[in-house]
Order: sequence, then structure tokens, then C-alpha cells
Amino acid sequence: MCRSHGEKSVKKVFTEDGAGACEAKSSTSEVRDTHRKGLRQFTPLVVVLVGLPARGKTILAHKLSRYLTWTDHKAKVFSVSAYRRKHQELYNSHDIFRVSNKEGYNMRQLSAREAQEDATKWLKNDGEVAIIDGTTATMEKRKQIHDFFARKMGFKVLFVELIIQDEDILEHNIKEMIQFNKDYKNMSEDKAMDDFQHKMEHFIEVYETINPKMEARYSYIKVYDGGENMNVRFIDGPLQSEVLSYISNFRPTPKTFYFSRHGESEFNVLGRIGGDADLSPRGRMYAAALARHFNEAEVHDLHIWTSEKRRTKQTVAGINATSEAIPALNELDAGVCEGYSYEEMQDKFPQEFAWRDQDKLRYRYPWGESYVDIMHRIRPVLLELEREDNLLVVSHQAVLRCLLGYFMNKKPDELPYMNVPLHTIIKLTTSGYKTHMEVIKLNIACVDTYRQQPKDCSALRSTQEALHTVPAHYDSLNIWNGQLPNLIQQN
Amino acid sequence: MCRSHGEKSVKKVFTEDGAGACEAKSSTSEVRDTHRKGLRQFTPLVVVLVGLPARGKTILAHKLSRYLTWTDHKAKVFSVSAYRRKHQELYNSHDIFRVSNKEGYNMRQLSAREAQEDATKWLKNDGEVAIIDGTTATMEKRKQIHDFFARKMGFKVLFVELIIQDEDILEHNIKEMIQFNKDYKNMSEDKAMDDFQHKMEHFIEVYETINPKMEARYSYIKVYDGGENMNVRFIDGPLQSEVLSYISNFRPTPKTFYFSRHGESEFNVLGRIGGDADLSPRGRMYAAALARHFNEAEVHDLHIWTSEKRRTKQTVAGINATSEAIPALNELDAGVCEGYSYEEMQDKFPQEFAWRDQDKLRYRYPWGESYVDIMHRIRPVLLELEREDNLLVVSHQAVLRCLLGYFMNKKPDELPYMNVPLHTIIKLTTSGYKTHMEVIKLNIACVDTYRQQPKDCSALRSTQEALHTVPAHYDSLNIWNGQLPNLIQQN
Repeated sequence: MCRSHGEKSVKKVFTEDGAGACEAKSSTSEVRDTHRKGLRQFTPLVVVLVGLPARGKTILAHKLSRYLTWTDHKAKVFSVSAYRRKHQELYNSHDIFRVSNKEGYNMRQLSAREAQEDATKWLKNDGEVAIIDGTTATMEKRKQIHDFFARKMGFKVLFVELIIQDEDILEHNIKEMIQFNKDYKNMSEDKAMDDFQHKMEHFIEVYETINPKMEARYSYIKVYDGGENMNVRFIDGPLQSEVLSYISNFRPTPKTFYFSRHGESEFNVLGRIGGDADLSPRGRMYAAALARHFNEAEVHDLHIWTSEKRRTKQTVAGINATSEAIPALNELDAGVCEGYSYEEMQDKFPQEFAWRDQDKLRYRYPWGESYVDIMHRIRPVLLELEREDNLLVVSHQAVLRCLLGYFMNKKPDELPYMNVPLHTIIKLTTSGYKTHMEVIKLNIACVDTYRQQPKDCSALRSTQEALHTVPAHYDSLNIWNGQLPNLIQQN
Repeated sequence: MCRSHGEKSVKKVFTEDGAGACEAKSSTSEVRDTHRKGLRQFTPLVVVLVGLPARGKTILAHKLSRYLTWTDHKAKVFSVSAYRRKHQELYNSHDIFRVSNKEGYNMRQLSAREAQEDATKWLKNDGEVAIIDGTTATMEKRKQIHDFFARKMGFKVLFVELIIQDEDILEHNIKEMIQFNKDYKNMSEDKAMDDFQHKMEHFIEVYETINPKMEARYSYIKVYDGGENMNVRFIDGPLQSEVLSYISNFRPTPKTFYFSRHGESEFNVLGRIGGDADLSPRGRMYAAALARHFNEAEVHDLHIWTSEKRRTKQTVAGINATSEAIPALNELDAGVCEGYSYEEMQDKFPQEFAWRDQDKLRYRYPWGESYVDIMHRIRPVLLELEREDNLLVVSHQAVLRCLLGYFMNKKPDELPYMNVPLHTIIKLTTSGYKTHMEVIKLNIACVDTYRQQPKDCSALRSTQEALHTVPAHYDSLNIWNGQLPNLIQQN
């Protein structure tokens, strides 16, 4: 089925044993490009953070960058202090921030310039959103930045000023900053706190908030107290709205989430995908164990999101907490292959089965979805999660791969083969933009549903090759196939 | 290939002659549902407009509703004055808005209640965003609305207040309102203007702007002078951000756009889809005619967007205006079928070809796109267009169907068969939320690329049936096939 006409080059996909098969896979990377480009802004955007120290700029910079990356934009943080640390490996004291310290001033100016230059290079190549993480504390500095990026380079510029009026939030931020800021890693807490107070005083001396009259020509967002109130000036285009959209949901408080797949289902036992089957007897045991775990843990204000499928609802039925069924948490739609086993897919749709193996991230089942579709589908869930805490999410393998991948900063290509086993709780604790993961295996046996990428992904491979990595399960006659039953995963 | 297992019901697709073919099409409506649900908010949202008359509330309500519908949300406007007109068919005068007019007050209260009740019914069924278009002029009224929708019904409520400080904008709005408002359709302009001034005075007497201190418990957006400045209070979730995102781009000024497909390409002549072919000789003639048309028209500040494809860039090469190539305007990606003729698709992928005919809106080519994907891909373009004027967009058949369908308020299912012929300029003039369309055919002959939906869409149909509606073109040996050459479309 080689094609000799058309615009796309046909790539040969070589198998491990050297046999070449002509595949229509040529288009996959181009498909990805279409998707990327589809959402690309017309003009690159520079988001310039403005604010005194400990206002949450660095947290916002990194979380915004992660969110934009996840929603198909090329975003990158350029941290002025990271450049400064290249010039001064060991931080001494607040003195470099003193207004009259000429040497310190020059070094900080140089660092800001380097961040600008690298951001420019990156945007001229193929970047879309550069986020400049610095204080950008004066009108003069903002004018210089705007002149450079907007006037000289032709990029769009959006200033985002973080203002904190609530003393409690500020105190919390300062504690977190002293803990995580690299400048303070070799300092005692007391010394760091003292140094930080001086540093802050230096900045307060020069700091000018964005002036609505004198700086009315800029696009800007003033964010008060971590996103609750905002003043917004002249949003210019879809990419700036995307940033506004994220910031309006952003809440920089620490959070705890629990994730779990549903208990083993009847379809899992039969090696079938999709569908809306009930839990298997062992799946029901997991549901009971999960209920015991959470009811004993007495998590404050625990609440639950499931998908709309029976197996996720049955999994949480015994937990003493309110539960909501969220359509966006439903499993990847396998389209015409819903309810099939891998053996049947290979039998009925060998070409589709091979395409999926070639590029599982981007492959869409006919009338169904791909992992990329799921990444898009969970976007509102990611925004909702910003304002949640002590939440248990019970969903499905592909959806959880995408959700966990987001928090763990995985690259999209890693998602389809992330290991998210059945009968396991994954606890995430987020603080700032760092996430800590804890894996809690409940001791209930279940099948393994993890299918590795086969070595041979060609449509011309043998049935045996195609099915080589299918995990063991019962077939439709309830006869155990694949490896011996003692290979059933014991968690 | 009938399936007897799995979760999805298998529907029989009957052909015109009564022969039944078992198709995997069962999943298409479910696929659509997945897509709809994927973006659905967790809790329904009520957007309540607030503002004096002529502040642009009705325009915003309808444009926001159209945008949300297009981006896969179920949105609907509930206009309080439409309910009022049911109780009082013929509008007499401003007197019903007089504060001390008890009868008028009661009627308006009743209308507001009816709008609330219908919005509630609709949201409890399957609506997502109800937009209440009324003045909602007092704190008391807002409290009543919030108590009802948020406290009693459990919906989210977002107030959007439109404030105009710029006298010119207000004057423009008043003129437009007197022209379009149904109350004034039987009144002379002078009388209407006088009546409107009185009506406004009645409202000013009672109007209270949203009070940041006393109404701090609400989510709200205050929009100044048509979107340039905003105060935003407590955005709560992705659906509210989507509304914020649209409003931040919204500019209610009149606009003129010109749309055209590229000139006839070499692939059009050969009946091939996709690719990156050059213009045919007749396509080059269209490019020349298009350049003459625009260069003679001397449109003020004309600028151009094309796709990245050679055929669109070549089409605008002679026009005296700046031009930008926008990836989001590229033609629908036909994946593995790029560069194929319909005859070849039927030959290599008869099942895919039949699926496409069954549901052209949602069908995705393997590794390619669907019309639904295009609707999503052009979302940033729709936001950018809000702030454009005198713009010529030269793109491709499927993309233009989606763009024009948006402005002409088409239902998604109508898009794939909209007629957007080659060698034709479509001029859109938008004023408020109404769009006027003018079709300008330039007199350059070209092939017809419009393929009707065949009567028989089953995968079991004969090749002849499948190709029955393919328009005439040259085949790969440059032999004219199909109907006689005199059927070539003469515009």
C-alpha cells in the first residue's frame, strides 16, 4: 500500500529483524504539528511578572508554564535570579539588592538582559510564550522591557503584577520562600529571615506598582491576594486570554489529592477495553479495602470525583464522603473497538492496532479518542483542581496517566506507557509548584492491564508478534490464556 | 462485521433500496456526546448581565452565547424584555419603566421571574450556561437572583456589568439601539430618541453599580468601555474563565471581513484533496482578478491572512496589502488520504470513505482531522477576529465553512455541506450581533469541488454508488472523467 503521489513523504518503518513495511505513519509527526500550530498565537507573547519578593511570582511562572505546555503551547520560564546566580554562585547577603550598591545593580541589570536575550532567541526559533520571572519593580524597567520586546522585536507583552494585601498569605509565602529559595539553602532559618527582610526593604524603596494612568498603554493584569481579585487592562488576543484564564483560576495554596483507578472490572478479567462493566469479585474487595482506608484515615472534608462509569462509582460506594460523577473523567473512548479484546482488535482491525502501537499518544480509534484528545478533555479538570483540596479522584488508566503526568511534569510522549496499576492509591501533595508523590498499594490481587509497546509495530507483523505483549487474562470462554495464572499481579 | 459483544448497541444503517448493512457508526453520536461532555462544567452557570440601557448587554449576550456554543458548550440567552413583550405586545412609552409605575413594575418583575424560571428548567435539563439579559439594576435585585440561582438551585452565578465612560461609544450604542430595538420599530427616530432618554432617566434613578465591598461575595466582572478595562472578582472554575476569556477579547464595534478560497489549484483540477499544490492557470487568473478587485476598491487599511499553503499565498500575491500566513487556517488534514482522489480513497479505504459519508462533521481521517477538530482549531482565530476590521482571509473549503458558519449562526451539522465555491469573494459586515453577507463572484471559470452526500453511505455499497456524486475532474492521465466538460462550473 505504498503511495507514490500526494504531498507527504512516505517513511519506511523498519522492524527489529530488518524487514521494511511501508506504513501510512508518515503523517503522524505532521499531525502533531497541525495540532500544535492550530493553537499557536499569531505573534509570540512575553509574560513579564511584576512584584515584590515573596508575592508568588516564581510559583505562578512555573505553574502557568506547565499549564500552557499541557494545553499545546510552547511555554518557558526565564528566571532572572537563575541568571544572577551564574554570576555569583554563592549568595552572600541582601547587600546586592541595596539601591546604592553599584556592583550589585550592574550584575542584576546584566542578568535581566541575559534573560531577555535568551527569551528572544527562543521566541524567534519556535517558542510561543516566554515568562520572565523577576521583580520588574519600576516604571522605567517596564518601559525598557516593553520597548525591547514590543517595539523592537514585535512581540506582544503582558505584565502580570502580583500584589498581596492579606498579611497571613504574605507570612505563609515568606516561610515557603525561605525554605525553597536557592539563595537560602546554606543559611539558618533565622539568618535567612533577617536577610530576606532587608532584601524586601531594598525593593520597597524603589518599587512602583503598575500605574493605571501612566502605564495605560500596556496590557496588564494586576492580581490581588492570589487570584481572588484582578484588574485587567487591554487583553490582546487568544494567547493572552489563555493566560488570563489560568490566572483567574490559580490559587497558590498547598493541596492534597488522592488518585485511584477503579477496582478490577469484569472486562479487565476478560482483557477487554472500554465498556461499562461491573466490578469483578476482586474489584469489590478493593472497593471495600479502599473504603476502610479512607474511613479510618478520616481525611478532613474529603470529597470524591468519579467518572460516569459503573466501575468507578462502585469503587467509591463504601467511602463516607460526597461523590460527584464527572464526564470528563470517563475512560478514553475506543470508538469502534469499545468492548474488544486486543486479540479481537488484531483480528478485525490489524492496521488500526499497528498504528496505535506506532504512536499511542496521537493515535485515535475510529470514532474514538487519542491520548492527545484526553489531554485536551481534562483541561477544565486541571483548572478545577487548582481550587480543590483533600479530593479523591477515581477514574481510568488513560485519564489518570494524563492527570498524574501533568502534576509530575511528564512529557506527553511518556504518558501512554506510564505505569498506573490497579488497586493502588496515589497520593499527591503539592506545595508551590513542587509535587510529592506517595504510592499506597492495597493488598488485593488483580490482573495486570499494562501492555508494553511491542518491538514490531508494522501492519505486516504476524498475529503472534502483535499480541506478544498482551497481558494474561481470561478469554471469552473463561479460559485463562497467556502466561501462567501465578503471574497474576499480587499487589 | 456485526459485533455482538461490547457495550455499544449496533445500529443498522439502511440504504435507500432497503438493503441493510451493519456499520460501526453506532458510536458517532456517543462520540459527539463525549466531546460535549468533555468540556461541560461541573455545575451549570448563570451569567447575569448588569447595566443601564444601551451599554451593549444584548450584543454581548448573543455573541457570548454563539461563541460558547461554537466551543462546545450549551449556552442560551434569556431576554427579560422578550418576556415583557409577551405581556405587552405593543410598546407604548418609557412610562412602564417609571419607578412609581406599579403596574409597569409588576409586569417587569413578572418577566424577570419568567426568564429565571425558564433558565432554571433549561439548566436542569441539559443546558450549561444560561445568560440572563436584563438590567439587573439594583443590589436588591442581584441578591434575589443570587439567592435563587446559587443558594436555592445550586448553580454558579457570574454577574457581568457593562459600564461605559466614553461618550462617543455611548452615543454610537444609543443610535444602534434605536435602530434595532423591537420597542422602537414603529416609532420615528426623534420620538424613539426622546423616549429612550426618558427610559434611561428612570433607570439612572435606581441604578446601583456592583459594590466591591458590599457585594464582595459574588463572582463578577465589571467591563469598562467595551472590554478594554475590567475588574474581576473571584472567577470560579473553567466555565467562568471561558466567559472571561471571551469578554476580554470582545470589542463591539462594526467590522468588515472578506473571505475567499484560494484560486483553482492543480490538485482541484485532478480531483485530489489536501496537499500543497500550485495554482492552475485558471487559478492564477483568479489571483489576478482578485488583485484587480481589491486594488481598485482601495479598502482602507486592508490586510490579509492566508494559510501556510502555496495556493493561498499565490492567490493574494498581487494585492497591495500586508499578508500574514496563519497555520490555523490550513485545510483540514486528510491524514493518510492526503493527496488522494475520491476514486483512490474508495479503492484503498472503502470503510473510511463510507464512514466519512455517514457523518462528515465528526469523521476524522486516520492521523488527520474532522470538521469538529477544525471548529476547535479556529477558536483563536475567532477571538482574533473580534479585534479586526477590513481583513481579507484566504483559506480553504472546510476551514471557510467553519468560519462562515460561525458568523452565519449555522448549526454544526450544516457545515460540511455548505456551498463555498471557488473564485468567489464573500463579504461579511457585522454590526452588533447581526451579520450581513454579500457574495461577489469573479468571472473566472473553475472546476466544481462540491461533492454531495451520496444516498448510500454503507460500507457495502458498490464503487459506482460510492463515487456517484464525485464532481467531474481530470484523472491522473489528464483524461477528463465524469460529466461532459461543459459542466465545468462557469461562475
